[in-house]
Amino acid sequence: MRCFVPFAVDSPKTRLGSFLSPAERQSFATAMLLDVLDTLVSAGLDPTVLSTAPITDDRIPSRATITVDDRELTTAVNAQLAEHTPTLIIMADLPLVQPRDIPRLVDNEAEITIAPGLGGGTNALVVREPAFRVDYHGASYLDHRQAAVELDATVQTVDSRRLATDIDESADLAEVLIHGTGTAHDWLVESGFELDTTGGRVGVHRS
Amino acid sequence: MRCFVPFAVDSPKTRLGSFLSPAERQSFATAMLLDVLDTLVSAGLDPTVLSTAPITDDRIPSRATITVDDRELTTAVNAQLAEHTPTLIIMADLPLVQPRDIPRLVDNEAEITIAPGLGGGTNALVVREPAFRVDYHGASYLDHRQAAVELDATVQTVDSRRLATDIDESADLAEVLIHGTGTAHDWLVESGFELDTTGGRVGVHRS
Repeated sequence: MRCFVPFAVDSPKTRLGSFLSPAERQSFATAMLLDVLDTLVSAGLDPTVLSTAPITDDRIPSRATITVDDRELTTAVNAQLAEHTPTLIIMADLPLVQPRDIPRLVDNEAEITIAPGLGGGTNALVVREPAFRVDYHGASYLDHRQAAVELDATVQTVDSRRLATDIDESADLAEVLIHGTGTAHDWLVESGFELDTTGGRVGVHRS
Repeated sequence: MRCFVPFAVDSPKTRLGSFLSPAERQSFATAMLLDVLDTLVSAGLDPTVLSTAPITDDRIPSRATITVDDRELTTAVNAQLAEHTPTLIIMADLPLVQPRDIPRLVDNEAEITIAPGLGGGTNALVVREPAFRVDYHGASYLDHRQAAVELDATVQTVDSRRLATDIDESADLAEVLIHGTGTAHDWLVESGFELDTTGGRVGVHRS
């Protein structure tokens, strides 16, 4: 199946700004992208990074392709959907996802398969209905369900914590420290992040 | 399978204190408990509420039993584990859980099956190893994995967003508004809560 991973090269992960410098945010975002690409390749896919600018990193798997499209996320994804379906769109900030999670998306027969993110986002999406278009603003999970209904398309939701956990805020870093095993996890450990179990939910502090 | 749902009658959900009055928190916590009990009964189980004080509510399903144990959570749960296994322990603040999620827990052959919560908690746990004891403090998911390793017990993690989403903080209320369909969802709507899509992740505001 065609598979796209949108990636914003400039100023990624602004909500981690109080924890990470701009250069660190770029480095951590790349680490998460590498985890997602490794997972997709291990699951048998040949992912295309839909990047806002050229990227070169010798850790990118050879089976991955970089395509530059500097338009905003929704426009760039819809251009790909207009070209061909079925297509998997999966976000670059999902370092917890494992190869065994991918069949739950791509083997689903529904015309629209959605893995919602925390806070109403759409973290992964398989589109088999050629007329379907995305809109990533706001509570896109609800909007995408509604768009599917309007097309009379069947919808399935994938219930996965790992697919739901996009890493945007400081509390999310704890999830990477607790459950992660890859490049993003190691990046946080090497950058001095540790679990902080003094509050209600486990958070992080930096040494 | 034996099935326990721990429930704290006094001062539940303190981290929702800026949104809800003490009476409202109690009412909302009960609504969530009812959703969990309905789900368990629909999945074919006869749940026991392990409550810190007597509760009477005519909405409690007839197949559910109330057992009062005013000891703290870890002690009360371990007393039940000492008596008999296999046992399912599932938290009362998981209103998104659906009947189809329960077989992923109870049909698992592992000696310890854990559904982690966001922030490193243990939202649901099936114990088949008689010597296993819980400790719900801190990052209990990691501690429970370690305890299983020390007993040479097999461990499985259930990857479920619905089981991971315990409702503790204001951001979690958005998950109930987005994905919920039961008593807790209706309680929030009737209490004036609405989705707020103006920020990064979708939150809530109250009208």
